[in-house]
Order: sequence, then structure tokens, then C-alpha cells
Amino acid sequence: MLCYNEAGAERLIKGEDRCMARKAFQDYYPDDVSYCYGCGRLNEHGLQIKSYWDGEEAVCTFQPRSYHLAIPGYVYGGLIASLIDCHSTGTAAAAAYRAQGRAMDTDPPLRFVTASLHVDYVRPTPIEEPLELRSQVKEIKGRKVAISTTLSARGEVCARGEVVAVQMPDHLLRTSRGEHKNPSEQAGLIA
Amino acid sequence: MLCYNEAGAERLIKGEDRCMARKAFQDYYPDDVSYCYGCGRLNEHGLQIKSYWDGEEAVCTFQPRSYHLAIPGYVYGGLIASLIDCHSTGTAAAAAYRAQGRAMDTDPPLRFVTASLHVDYVRPTPIEEPLELRSQVKEIKGRKVAISTTLSARGEVCARGEVVAVQMPDHLLRTSRGEHKNPSEQAGLIA
Repeated sequence: MLCYNEAGAERLIKGEDRCMARKAFQDYYPDDVSYCYGCGRLNEHGLQIKSYWDGEEAVCTFQPRSYHLAIPGYVYGGLIASLIDCHSTGTAAAAAYRAQGRAMDTDPPLRFVTASLHVDYVRPTPIEEPLELRSQVKEIKGRKVAISTTLSARGEVCARGEVVAVQMPDHLLRTSRGEHKNPSEQAGLIA
Repeated sequence: MLCYNEAGAERLIKGEDRCMARKAFQDYYPDDVSYCYGCGRLNEHGLQIKSYWDGEEAVCTFQPRSYHLAIPGYVYGGLIASLIDCHSTGTAAAAAYRAQGRAMDTDPPLRFVTASLHVDYVRPTPIEEPLELRSQVKEIKGRKVAISTTLSARGEVCARGEVVAVQMPDHLLRTSRGEHKNPSEQAGLIA
């Protein structure tokens, strides 16, 4: 198939269904909101997850590191929660742009934070192989987006997640850009 | 007050309400289940949280690291979920020992895993100062323990969590001890 890598050069990728060289949702985040430990491409200590559309679903693949364990052989629950959380807020942003008929690199930027996160741990999650997260957009209503996610390993669902994401309030976006530092304006995540 | 540090030496700690030298719940975990990224004292890359009874509540204090951010100044949601998760499973274990009238260093060991986790993010969580988690045991029923938790910063509740923890199935405990490696026995977290 024909696709474009991040530098925009045309490439022919043989034998692959999807073009892995395309930009992820997180690659479109403005620099000043790209330091999240879970999904910020500029956080060198972080997980740096990457999410993409695959038809109507958003997909993320992540290889746990050897120290992300719960007991030997299995992933700890906090990583699973983190992956579901950040993949869902990224999907919420992508879905909001899509609903507005806008590309993800157009202004004003749309960035989402988590209002609530629910995870059901269905079975132990093996640590050796990549995990696949698949999200569906359940609802877009005003500034809120509801996302349902499965996390699978070796083709088996190991966890299911439900996230309500909310568009980041303008005062928090401004704070992250250093435009003001008035603490009284920082209270109240959900306007 | 008089208390004992981990080496058992008697110490006189003046001007403190609580003896911080006492052992945490996690210090009682057997070595072979002490590698969890969130709460294992033997995971050198991990968070190594410590939880203690404070009357009927279980308390954990954690100082986020500078890179645990969502946007500059605030903690990312995955860390909050991880702290609530691991503090809750530790509290579940401590509550189960207490309900059986047993000390936490007696056999057989009781170790809990997470069946479900719910987090409501109430307000942005500042990253500069220690976070305090306070958990209450809502119910102990068979192998399940339900825990409610608040996570606060600067005296304000920033997140609320609900965890259902389940006593770790024997086959998983045996797996972590390397007693067998039969994958067919590893399916099904909640027996």
C-alpha cells in the first residue's frame, strides 16, 4: 500500500495491511501538552503510547517493559489502567476532531482529560508479548466523550475499560502554556 | 511514643503521633510476591508505596516524581489509578488478616489482586507535594474485599476510588513461586 511517513516521503510498504509510518493521535498534540507520562511524545521517562484509527476503532499496541510486573509473568494493574486512560483520552480527541470535520493539526487544539475511569480485570495479563488496546467511541456530547476499550494479549481480552473524557478547560490549557499561574483559576477540572 | 523500627530496636520518637518506623503492609508480603511495580519493595524501578493503619483507615503517602506529569504542574491520571489500585489491594490484605485475627507475617500468606477499579477525577492533582491516600474497608465477603479511597493533595480531595480486590488464586501464588508453569492453570484470575 502507499502511505506517507512522518517526513512526508512516499513509501511503498509491502505485505502490510496498515501503514505504521503514519502519524499517531499523540503526534498531533501541541508541544506544551506533550509531556504526559502515559502519552506525551516529549516525556523521555514515559510510556509514549501511540494510537491510530483502524476503521471505526482506535488501536494502540504496547510492549510492557520487564519491570512492569505484578507477579512474575504478569502485568501490574496500574499499567493497564494507565494504557486504557491515555489511549482513551487520545481517542476522545481524535473523535472530537473527526466530529467537527477537522484535521488534528488545526487550531484551536482539542485536548482531553479523564473525568472517570473504570477497569474490569478479566484475567491475568501476560507480560512477554505486546498488548493491543481497541477503543470504540460510545458517545460525544458537548465537551464529553465516552470510550469503551478492550485490552488483549495473545488474542484474549484481559481487561475492559470505560472512560469518560472531558475537553480540557481553557484555563488549564493556558496554564500548561505558562500564560498565567493564578492558582484560584486552576481549581475545578470539569467546568 | 515508644515504637520499634524494622530492626526491632526500641526508639523514642518525640513529637510525632505515629511511628513512621513501623512496618508497612507491603513489608510483610513474601519475597516472591514483592515485585509489583506499584507496591513491591523488591522492584527497584517501581513506586514502592507503603501503607499503614491509622485507626480504621489505611493511609499511604506518596511523593510524585517530576516526570509523573499530565500537563506541567499536575499528576497524570495513570499514577493516581496505580496508587489507588496498589494501596487498595494492600489494604484488602491487611483487612483480611485482621478479620482472621492473624498477624501479617503468619502463614498462609494472603495476597490480593484487583477485580475492578473505578476512579473519579475530581480536580487536577498538583505534583509538587506529597499525595495522601486514605482507604476504608467497605465489605469483606468470602475472598472479596471492597475498598473506598480518597486521594488528596494540600488537604483537598483530588480523586476518589473504588476497588474490588480478590484473594489471589492459589495457582497464581504457586506460579509466582515457580512451583509449576502449566499455562492452562493460569487462565481465570477470579476463581
